[in-house]
Amino acid sequence: MAGAVEMVEVWRGDMAESRHRGHAVVCDTDGEIVAAWGDPQAVIYPRSSVKMIQALPLIESGAADAAGLDDGELALACASHEGAPLHVGRVAAWLGRLGFAEADLRCGAQPSRDRAERKRMLIAGEAPSQLHNNCSGKHAGFLTLSRHLGGGSDYNDPDHPVQRAVRAAFEEVTGLESPCHAVDGCSAPNYATTMHGLARAMGFFAGARADAADSRARAAGRLVDAMRAHPDLVAGEGRACTEMMRAMAGRAAVKTGAEGVFVAILPDRCLGVALKIEDGATRASEAAIAGLLAHLGALDRDHPAVRKRLGAPIVNWRGVATGEVRLAFGFA
Amino acid sequence: MAGAVEMVEVWRGDMAESRHRGHAVVCDTDGEIVAAWGDPQAVIYPRSSVKMIQALPLIESGAADAAGLDDGELALACASHEGAPLHVGRVAAWLGRLGFAEADLRCGAQPSRDRAERKRMLIAGEAPSQLHNNCSGKHAGFLTLSRHLGGGSDYNDPDHPVQRAVRAAFEEVTGLESPCHAVDGCSAPNYATTMHGLARAMGFFAGARADAADSRARAAGRLVDAMRAHPDLVAGEGRACTEMMRAMAGRAAVKTGAEGVFVAILPDRCLGVALKIEDGATRASEAAIAGLLAHLGALDRDHPAVRKRLGAPIVNWRGVATGEVRLAFGFA
Repeated sequence: MAGAVEMVEVWRGDMAESRHRGHAVVCDTDGEIVAAWGDPQAVIYPRSSVKMIQALPLIESGAADAAGLDDGELALACASHEGAPLHVGRVAAWLGRLGFAEADLRCGAQPSRDRAERKRMLIAGEAPSQLHNNCSGKHAGFLTLSRHLGGGSDYNDPDHPVQRAVRAAFEEVTGLESPCHAVDGCSAPNYATTMHGLARAMGFFAGARADAADSRARAAGRLVDAMRAHPDLVAGEGRACTEMMRAMAGRAAVKTGAEGVFVAILPDRCLGVALKIEDGATRASEAAIAGLLAHLGALDRDHPAVRKRLGAPIVNWRGVATGEVRLAFGFA
Repeated sequence: MAGAVEMVEVWRGDMAESRHRGHAVVCDTDGEIVAAWGDPQAVIYPRSSVKMIQALPLIESGAADAAGLDDGELALACASHEGAPLHVGRVAAWLGRLGFAEADLRCGAQPSRDRAERKRMLIAGEAPSQLHNNCSGKHAGFLTLSRHLGGGSDYNDPDHPVQRAVRAAFEEVTGLESPCHAVDGCSAPNYATTMHGLARAMGFFAGARADAADSRARAAGRLVDAMRAHPDLVAGEGRACTEMMRAMAGRAAVKTGAEGVFVAILPDRCLGVALKIEDGATRASEAAIAGLLAHLGALDRDHPAVRKRLGAPIVNWRGVATGEVRLAFGFA
């Protein structure tokens, strides 16, 4: 990944104390590069940023409609939610309606990231379940698709019909054969691609409409609509995805991925965006995507959802302002 | 900070997913550079890595002996402790013996980083105090010095006699005038220096002996001895500093600082080490210093304290191994 460029600086007093480098590519709906920083050919794991790609077979196969999934459930299939009662309850209801149990999930138990819920569970002595895993909606989608396709219980196996369908969709929308895959935090396979491939896929989603003639475009359009209609389900209160989508009032879908990945789908601008911070830092990917969306005119630079991640004072244990996060010169 | 070199890679499957760059300098006891990676002239905030420098005036002034501080208290003055009962209790006793109260501290309240204590406090509804702040030992030292010097209550003020003495000691052992300072997480001033300056200071500490003729060398030697004798007080159970110092069985003192800083003092090798990860990541600074200490022959590469940070499997929410942290080619 040589060629990553400086994107974000963390200032303390009158000096940049830490610096984050990365790659970013903006594509149009045909997958042509409109703007790029760093190396568009850098190969990355997109991690959770591609949940809307992983959900394409759920719709295209007919499984989503056969199971009567609503827009909220489609948004949850694309979500990295924070395990708040809102998310856990809706995923539990989805599974229950289809006759699945929590034990059918294969994402692993993860503590809730919702502060109040985590505190409640700690005091009550309740262990986190797989429903609290940020990927439980994606896995509920995998289970739904698995039943529809008649696959076995290990839907995370790369040779399972679910993951074969995911890989095919992934390679088609990125326009590239994936050079390798690895096990994600939730145990599902995660396919590698280039920055350009990821941005190309996001450009495809930006051009897709729920009433398109093409079935894949219809599926992609429905997923983008579901994400834009339910920013609270895609992440949660206080989270970057939720706050930035709300700030754009339904004009865009954005999605984070572990290790410094962020993507954005801008249907009204016909643009798709992919961003990776080389060192994997979330503070930097959030600041960089906020700055990039402002640069593209999709977000107001003074909106609280941007300012919280870019330019707001960093305060210490006594509440004293010690510095701030800034964009590096020359980026966005 | 152009010129940072790749030091640490975070692998997932068969590919490096994220990369961390940084600077590292190894100096002898005269401050001459023995080895360097990246830019020795890069200017950084050393953050908590220089607490042993900030504690020099406490001893040199005679304040420590006048107050009857023991080696454990000197180690706490150099510590970023985790706010476990061990640390909180000893700092409270120190303050109480001198007639100070928790409210005299000016480091701010910070939640304990000791898991059991944090859980106990959460369930009991106890708010964290300034004693839990990882810097409370350093601040107890500042209070002790402030009384000895007759300074006012705001010992964090850069013009306070305490901080003037700290700055003078800092510039003398780094061999450089500090180009700027900023407010640290605990509200004390933190003085910037170069990588070479920081490594030169650590080289000085490595050559200092508690029975030296020179009063500064005596003070430095006492502090290094105190740190080496009390690895549990310098950080805490499970922490990198504590585990690596135990692994070196008293042969070295190591100290972390926020935003990816690490230093090491190797008296038996007459070497001082300074390391800064450009992006500020702790996972990388811990891996890099472990690798560098192994490279220098000070730590066994297969010791659990090294393996935990370098080469051990990264496991996901289901306990599946997904990757590992490695040193970049060409570093250490």
